[in-house]
Amino acid sequence: MRTEIIGVGTELLLGQIANTNAQWISSRLADYGIPVYHHTVVGDNLDRVTSSFKNAQKRSDIIIITGGLGPTEDDLTRDAGKRVLGLNLVEHRETMDKIQSYYDRNQRTMTVNNRKQSLVFEGANVLPNLEGMAPGQWINRDGVLWIFLPGVPGEMKHLMEEYVLPRLQSNFQVDSQIVSQMLRFIGIGESDLETKLQTLITQQTNPTIAPLASEGEVGVRLTATGATTAEAWKKVENLKEQILNHVGQYYYGSDDITVEEKVRDLLKAKGLTIGSAESFTGGKFLERLVSLPGASNVCQGGYIAYTAEMKEKVLQVSKLLITTYGTISNQCAEVMARNTQSLLGVDIAISFTGVAGPDQSEGQEPGKVFIGLQIGDEKPEVYEYHFHGGRDQVRTRAVKKGYELLFHRLKK
Amino acid sequence: MRTEIIGVGTELLLGQIANTNAQWISSRLADYGIPVYHHTVVGDNLDRVTSSFKNAQKRSDIIIITGGLGPTEDDLTRDAGKRVLGLNLVEHRETMDKIQSYYDRNQRTMTVNNRKQSLVFEGANVLPNLEGMAPGQWINRDGVLWIFLPGVPGEMKHLMEEYVLPRLQSNFQVDSQIVSQMLRFIGIGESDLETKLQTLITQQTNPTIAPLASEGEVGVRLTATGATTAEAWKKVENLKEQILNHVGQYYYGSDDITVEEKVRDLLKAKGLTIGSAESFTGGKFLERLVSLPGASNVCQGGYIAYTAEMKEKVLQVSKLLITTYGTISNQCAEVMARNTQSLLGVDIAISFTGVAGPDQSEGQEPGKVFIGLQIGDEKPEVYEYHFHGGRDQVRTRAVKKGYELLFHRLKK
Repeated sequence: MRTEIIGVGTELLLGQIANTNAQWISSRLADYGIPVYHHTVVGDNLDRVTSSFKNAQKRSDIIIITGGLGPTEDDLTRDAGKRVLGLNLVEHRETMDKIQSYYDRNQRTMTVNNRKQSLVFEGANVLPNLEGMAPGQWINRDGVLWIFLPGVPGEMKHLMEEYVLPRLQSNFQVDSQIVSQMLRFIGIGESDLETKLQTLITQQTNPTIAPLASEGEVGVRLTATGATTAEAWKKVENLKEQILNHVGQYYYGSDDITVEEKVRDLLKAKGLTIGSAESFTGGKFLERLVSLPGASNVCQGGYIAYTAEMKEKVLQVSKLLITTYGTISNQCAEVMARNTQSLLGVDIAISFTGVAGPDQSEGQEPGKVFIGLQIGDEKPEVYEYHFHGGRDQVRTRAVKKGYELLFHRLKK
Repeated sequence: MRTEIIGVGTELLLGQIANTNAQWISSRLADYGIPVYHHTVVGDNLDRVTSSFKNAQKRSDIIIITGGLGPTEDDLTRDAGKRVLGLNLVEHRETMDKIQSYYDRNQRTMTVNNRKQSLVFEGANVLPNLEGMAPGQWINRDGVLWIFLPGVPGEMKHLMEEYVLPRLQSNFQVDSQIVSQMLRFIGIGESDLETKLQTLITQQTNPTIAPLASEGEVGVRLTATGATTAEAWKKVENLKEQILNHVGQYYYGSDDITVEEKVRDLLKAKGLTIGSAESFTGGKFLERLVSLPGASNVCQGGYIAYTAEMKEKVLQVSKLLITTYGTISNQCAEVMARNTQSLLGVDIAISFTGVAGPDQSEGQEPGKVFIGLQIGDEKPEVYEYHFHGGRDQVRTRAVKKGYELLFHRLKK
């Protein structure tokens, strides 16, 4: 069962809007276990819409078309459909009455092009549109199911939920339920993780395993089908257990959790408070924590000491240390963390110093970063990194790395 | 000149993300007058990627492909390209060196699948990727121009702006010239601005005027066409002058400038330094400034005092003030700004205190915000706001408002 979603509209090809209709439909079909093979977008041009329909007809079993059903000259979906399906267009009485009464109610004269919206394919199963004018249509023709929907997202979603999804489920005996979970890992690269899971990935077909890299971390999506939801979840759980046997040490949570939230939860569970001293990250580390509800339980405050002068004045880093080692140094990161802990009276202090770029600083290359950790009365720790990328990326990666370090230290 | 954009990736067909790459590319190509005829999305399946490439080859002159260039098993764009273009894949030495040195610098072992990212088509014009690993490629083959780009939006945009768009412009004699400028306003709402410009908006067809609201500010895009670029720019300049006659007091800059950059520039021009004291904004204000290159000339540092305890300890707000007025008060904001100025020895200090939500704090409603300004030895100023929206929106709006206040004070 191969599904294709065709978006009709020049506004999509001009980049005025993204094709969020295709995204939404795909995500709902995935919930029902109906696989989508292609998305196509074509502009308001009769020949090109026609040929997109013909392409789809050759390679797909279900074709869902959004857009091009409005009243204006450039709404061409019906005309292209007429050519490809070989069906006449007829007026749908109920729709026409509805359009007419809308204009009567608003004491406006209906322009003649509005009649167009009431035209449907002969023999089509008409899906009444309670959110707008043009109805949806459901047509079986030569072994292909054609579903025509308006492009306005609210109308499209209404017709999908109300008619299309329930009918697809009953017509296609979707005896399989689909469930999916995203496992989140930090401290391991995508390719390294894939190598460690190689055997599992090649053996598995249900659930499938899809690694997905994002800034500074990796997700692994497990998607399973089963006769019941419970059966599908059982498959996900079994596979998850096997995966965690291999790479469990990097796992921090599932689905929508972020590593910042995980760190907040760990701090809270252990009754610990945290403070920060940030140079080139400029407050970005603490800002992520403060952005979370409930942060005030664990997050007290911090310093942003961007210049060397501020590191002396506010964080009491000695002038001697700065002239000897520079501010971008192991030594400076250590003192920043240690002094922050005692100045703020917090359990844990974290410090960031480095070169965000684009230029060198103190003769050091962009991307060079030191992160200091002072936890309770333990020996302070300093970690050195060399990040690549522009100014924003270096700063973002450093902050993410800070959370990674805290996660691995706190989960113990 | 028919352009097609192909997005490769099952995550698109599952609806996990929208095809915003195609939207962005289309919108940039529209700026250059290069028409896009099709968007296609296909999953990580070799046969289907191959056949999408073949379809595109038949109907398009320029094919831009995003995604499927990563290191993993399901990155299949190279393999499909090899089949359709009939070109061998060869290792690109500079890319391989870059990948290897990344692993060396970070003292990690490179897994073998990373080599894949350095493979390019024989004879391809390689577009070096400064934001990531896999390079872009530009290939002329049998009258079709193939452009391969990574799917990570930041990397794709970097390669488009740096290499692809300038080359397309010089290779294809674009005959009507299109130019566009975004005018940026702060301190006026979208509907108010639109009302003030109503006559101009209805009269104008070339340039067109398109107002666009974003978080806390309004943009107005002017787009003009002309036989020459100079002619088109002249139209934009004339209209801009008329617009600024109406709403010039809110105008802070054009195109890609942000209000944060404008404030940085004004501080720099006046030789002033700034520091901050942030409560519920958690460092977000100063972070925006530190994110800009050259920030160290004007931005010294700041305090994040999230809890009442920190406001006492770090910012020396008196216990009496806090018990009398609370931390979410005119009085607290004033003292925070005043003390920050003297503690840091900066010319200007700005303070933020308020309730981000979702819950009340000290009996005050979410959205209540005080912003304090201490400029030189002037009388301190405090502004009170009631923002609506969730936690993130309240924090973002407060920070934007801080920049708006600084802009209007500094430009005098």
